[in-house]
Amino acid sequence: MTTLQTLDTPAALIDRARMQHNIERMQQRMDSLGVRFRPHVKTAKCIDVARAQRDAGARGITVSTLKEAEQFFAAGFSDILYAVGIAPSKLPRALALRRAGCDLKLLVDHPDAARALAAFGKQHGEAFEVWIEVDTDGHRSGIRPEDDLLLEVAHILHGGGMQIGGVMTHAGSSYELDTPEALAALAEQERAGCVRAAQRLRDAHLPCQGVSVGSTPTALRAQSLEGVTEVRAGVYVFFDLVMHNVGVCEIRELALSVVTTVIGHQPEKGWAIVDAGWMAMSRDRGTAKQAHDYGYGLVGRLDGTLLDGYQMIGANQEHGIVARAQTGNAAEDDDLRGASDQDIAIRLPIGTKLRIFPNHACATGAQFPDYHVLSADGAIIVWSRFHGW
Amino acid sequence: MTTLQTLDTPAALIDRARMQHNIERMQQRMDSLGVRFRPHVKTAKCIDVARAQRDAGARGITVSTLKEAEQFFAAGFSDILYAVGIAPSKLPRALALRRAGCDLKLLVDHPDAARALAAFGKQHGEAFEVWIEVDTDGHRSGIRPEDDLLLEVAHILHGGGMQIGGVMTHAGSSYELDTPEALAALAEQERAGCVRAAQRLRDAHLPCQGVSVGSTPTALRAQSLEGVTEVRAGVYVFFDLVMHNVGVCEIRELALSVVTTVIGHQPEKGWAIVDAGWMAMSRDRGTAKQAHDYGYGLVGRLDGTLLDGYQMIGANQEHGIVARAQTGNAAEDDDLRGASDQDIAIRLPIGTKLRIFPNHACATGAQFPDYHVLSADGAIIVWSRFHGW
Repeated sequence: MTTLQTLDTPAALIDRARMQHNIERMQQRMDSLGVRFRPHVKTAKCIDVARAQRDAGARGITVSTLKEAEQFFAAGFSDILYAVGIAPSKLPRALALRRAGCDLKLLVDHPDAARALAAFGKQHGEAFEVWIEVDTDGHRSGIRPEDDLLLEVAHILHGGGMQIGGVMTHAGSSYELDTPEALAALAEQERAGCVRAAQRLRDAHLPCQGVSVGSTPTALRAQSLEGVTEVRAGVYVFFDLVMHNVGVCEIRELALSVVTTVIGHQPEKGWAIVDAGWMAMSRDRGTAKQAHDYGYGLVGRLDGTLLDGYQMIGANQEHGIVARAQTGNAAEDDDLRGASDQDIAIRLPIGTKLRIFPNHACATGAQFPDYHVLSADGAIIVWSRFHGW
Repeated sequence: MTTLQTLDTPAALIDRARMQHNIERMQQRMDSLGVRFRPHVKTAKCIDVARAQRDAGARGITVSTLKEAEQFFAAGFSDILYAVGIAPSKLPRALALRRAGCDLKLLVDHPDAARALAAFGKQHGEAFEVWIEVDTDGHRSGIRPEDDLLLEVAHILHGGGMQIGGVMTHAGSSYELDTPEALAALAEQERAGCVRAAQRLRDAHLPCQGVSVGSTPTALRAQSLEGVTEVRAGVYVFFDLVMHNVGVCEIRELALSVVTTVIGHQPEKGWAIVDAGWMAMSRDRGTAKQAHDYGYGLVGRLDGTLLDGYQMIGANQEHGIVARAQTGNAAEDDDLRGASDQDIAIRLPIGTKLRIFPNHACATGAQFPDYHVLSADGAIIVWSRFHGW
């Protein structure tokens, strides 16, 4: 039987009890706010994780690629929102999914994309369900609620025989905040903007049943979701150090870590070298510009408790450098500096196994072909994940 | 037939003519310097790429994981240096490779690792070939040439019945330099340090036939490799923007790019949104602390020429932001800012395909299950790559 001690390293470890806690925490919150919850499965890209979310009450899933849609549909998930603006060249794959019975919803935010979609749908006799992306925080994509492009896109879709499923927005700038007040204010801005966009469509006698909002931080800090029909969130299932800095999770809720083995030392520099580099952790340095820069991750013991003060301060492809981090923000540099630690080879001898808690669970998970899933009784099973497009 | 125009995006594209040029450029240089060349296959993790390197004259390969060793051995590569200090728990996998006939060479840089290796080898009747890692630039791992740990490790191995293959070093700090003079000086430091370590072993009547050095920048700038038996380099096969900043390749030598499709715009901000985000490019921002910060990559047309002034200035998981980059170093921020570009939707309409040249080819390639390989006649074939450990 594989155990934490016998696991080949590096390995992506899911603490199943923590994951289940995170799933239930979010679902209970959504239930109490009276909205449907549609998890974003791009974080884990793992059928078993999505099943746990569904079993807890989630309805439908959100995906970021058509490959995710295809894989999850093949595993029995049918209600799927593809939450990235559809490129016209991807319409044949989307059509194939619809024809196979998948309740796939597409997204557009521009008249040109709407026209291409409607023309393709008409040509193939397919009334695609299309959602319109709304920009509520200037973060990335979408049409602002007061912009008349919104009505133009809706008229193109509706007039072209497509079904308008609703409006959706993602307040991705929530990742840049770190107080409950600021997050609650952004959640309200996200809600109000999306509800307003829906109202404008309805006022123009266009159908707009769905109002979909969400990000992990706004979902957890929203005070009211009046007018919203569903919420989306992804990274909450594992949480990570970026979310910890944002202030929506505790260290004890971090469900994903990378198990690694000490393979060497540079005592004068206070370094232990481990066999997890950036290929395992990913190159994500999302905490570099936050209040606490955790390097490439926080270092824990195999039992999941933290080794106080130790971080992965630097990484090459298959080498990580673990050291006591010096204080001070090192955002201008890719790597932090270690503090001298002559006894590190005694404290962390070659062969020692550690768990590194990552900055960004979506990026770290993507580096691995599968997860190792740790149960409360110490048993470890394997859940596969997929990658590519 | 798949062409650049019909390729599903995002896709990792190898320009085969550029790759072949890069392979021949390096091999000719190694031939003229009179050393064997052992490419590091961690960059591409692709059998077809390694075959092209072998066909051009490479002898043996370097790997960064045992999975690479296993995969390349299964494909007919036998002379393999595993260039990461071996964790004791990985010895059974290494033994299985040796027993299957693989000429696998292991690496240590510490008496404890040497003792564990020798004990395991003795227990299983296997005289492992072991190389000793030497630190010639304080970059990461290894024993300094004048440190007596070097002799201690060698005595443990030799006395324990293991074969000492030689000494090896990697001047990884070459990535931080950007003038020919500084690179030539570091290459000489790398050479001299490794040759000195070999000499100390030989003076102590210990075997030390091999002297292995290398990194792409030092390999391309070394003036003399006297005393060196082989050179290792990896990223030269594709090159990337980090190497361009280091000063060892031209833009026209960049053999790897990510093909992407425009899916939207934010004209007020000068943004085109594309369907390659950090999941495709990787989170590597290696140029952020170099002379030229290229964001998440330089933007080219489908024919491989650059769209002057355009970069991928920001990235989310499946969204990239392409814009004219503002000058000025933005290393303190993860994302750059775009310049206003009201005509961007006319210049780059939805559906436009672009090629993004990445910061770091090793990191970008790892995000894809396979490469699409473009020949001079426009035909595209698929080469698979593997990931995981």
